[in-house]
Amino acid sequence: MEAILLDPGGLHYQSSHPEPTPAEGEVLVRVLQAGICETDLQLAQGYMGFRGVLGHEFVGIAQTGTHAGRRVVGEINCNCRVCPTCRAGRPTHCPRRTVIGIDRHDGVFAQTVAIPEHNLHAVPENVTDDQALFTEPLAAAFEILEQVAITSADQIAILGDGRLGYLAAQVLSSVADRITVFGKHGVKLLRFGHRGYEVVQIPSTDPAELPRHKFDVVVDCSGSTTGLPMAIHLVRPRGTVVLKTTVADPHQLSLASIVIDEICVVGSRCGPFAKALDALASGEVDVDGLITDRYSLDQVKPAFAAAVNPNSFKVVFDVGSLSP
Amino acid sequence: MEAILLDPGGLHYQSSHPEPTPAEGEVLVRVLQAGICETDLQLAQGYMGFRGVLGHEFVGIAQTGTHAGRRVVGEINCNCRVCPTCRAGRPTHCPRRTVIGIDRHDGVFAQTVAIPEHNLHAVPENVTDDQALFTEPLAAAFEILEQVAITSADQIAILGDGRLGYLAAQVLSSVADRITVFGKHGVKLLRFGHRGYEVVQIPSTDPAELPRHKFDVVVDCSGSTTGLPMAIHLVRPRGTVVLKTTVADPHQLSLASIVIDEICVVGSRCGPFAKALDALASGEVDVDGLITDRYSLDQVKPAFAAAVNPNSFKVVFDVGSLSP
Repeated sequence: MEAILLDPGGLHYQSSHPEPTPAEGEVLVRVLQAGICETDLQLAQGYMGFRGVLGHEFVGIAQTGTHAGRRVVGEINCNCRVCPTCRAGRPTHCPRRTVIGIDRHDGVFAQTVAIPEHNLHAVPENVTDDQALFTEPLAAAFEILEQVAITSADQIAILGDGRLGYLAAQVLSSVADRITVFGKHGVKLLRFGHRGYEVVQIPSTDPAELPRHKFDVVVDCSGSTTGLPMAIHLVRPRGTVVLKTTVADPHQLSLASIVIDEICVVGSRCGPFAKALDALASGEVDVDGLITDRYSLDQVKPAFAAAVNPNSFKVVFDVGSLSP
Repeated sequence: MEAILLDPGGLHYQSSHPEPTPAEGEVLVRVLQAGICETDLQLAQGYMGFRGVLGHEFVGIAQTGTHAGRRVVGEINCNCRVCPTCRAGRPTHCPRRTVIGIDRHDGVFAQTVAIPEHNLHAVPENVTDDQALFTEPLAAAFEILEQVAITSADQIAILGDGRLGYLAAQVLSSVADRITVFGKHGVKLLRFGHRGYEVVQIPSTDPAELPRHKFDVVVDCSGSTTGLPMAIHLVRPRGTVVLKTTVADPHQLSLASIVIDEICVVGSRCGPFAKALDALASGEVDVDGLITDRYSLDQVKPAFAAAVNPNSFKVVFDVGSLSP
């Protein structure tokens, strides 16, 4: 099958990679579409040392199992379901887990992927393939609401004008009235402005002039080590910073103000797929028009170049339409 | 009056420093005893650029106001009581605040200090001067319970075998059954072992061999930039790290594991004086025998040398017994 592999030499397209062999409890899924996410860009730079088929955002058709023949999306953490962490209700933190396309489990930039059956969720009929592709990052945005109690009176700042920032803004605007988005790219910020969010372009704004201690909750989706210091500047005393950015680079920052201002910094990762699918089916979250670039798997280089281009928003591999 | 001043040249004893002039709402307090805390050591190294009379832990006798003639302790944040932050119930975060002996307000390493009257708390009769001296750091330890919901089943780690660690261990042991203390000093850890806490000496333990993902809550009282990375190593996924350490040095650390493990890092500073005084009066927290060194104000150099000596625990200035 066709697949995109990451090895020490970088990303490579392979036209005849072996089909995956499902492990116990896994089913084969034919990939229709797969999205490139910020984590993929980090992994391609060496983050976490991943080797294998890259990719974890997808919509596909289950080939076997109870969902056979149906469109599915899949949670990315492959957990054991029996260890104390899984039994304590934290399966996404299972110490034995592998993670699809991220940690010791082949991913979805391929024509076929093997996935634990209990990770799969059927896609509602009124959700298109293009929409379903956003289930995984949208679930990650919904994770914020699982972790932080947000009220309509809270002032929210989102750092980062990219894909996750856009989904987080919509999810948080379902509970909070005032959302301000800070980003570097005028062209990307337009999309936020059109939805009625206040936008602030940096570095056209001098960082020292950014409002200090203004926001109750700041969500760092910047994908940069500069995000957390800025979040600590923006958040009010006893406010909350939600850290979505995973970067390989070490941070260099003074943490004294976290203590002095009694700030809560909470890391946030994968979230509830069911809530994301509900929001897509009901139209509560609008992801239409976000896919700006479509490539086939053999176009790996231009696809990854597009994914870092500020004029692009979501870059996808159109796999199914090219498969036999 | 006698006082210890911090200026760009360092710490200096002055035998005839002018008596403070109380501002509106302030009363004069004659200092009986004053304690040296970790923050004083940091301030003496240049942290926050404080200039003036140092010191914020004390027990004294109010000279004027409703508490006149009574023993008092005092909260250290001098707030305006009218701004939105004060009115929102966060007076310790008042943006206009000064902080006694820390930020633009003369402190308690002196024979007399001027303090806002509403900062003062009368000391219960059965609490000795030596015990009352621990009210401020004990309140800071109680702040942890204001911020984090801890249950008896939680496994707690305390990083740091110093004064704040000792108070935090006692406060947390009032709600949690299992407390483990990590420290560098065998002689200090003995004190924790005698109370029945599990103790782990580092670096006699290889940091890589420290238990990973074991603790529900880790409290960093280490006073060192090495504390937070160790706390992140020790805490379980979705666990909480309480950051008590304020250091001037920048941290150099990778925050990816905060996100991957969805850890909550919460800064923690000043706490409820009333609860600390109640715990001292009831004997719930035992601070007897913690004062290992007593000095007069003119002995500033040996006093600060003792405060960083691992064989010392709490170093105090005995002011009242020397004052006329």
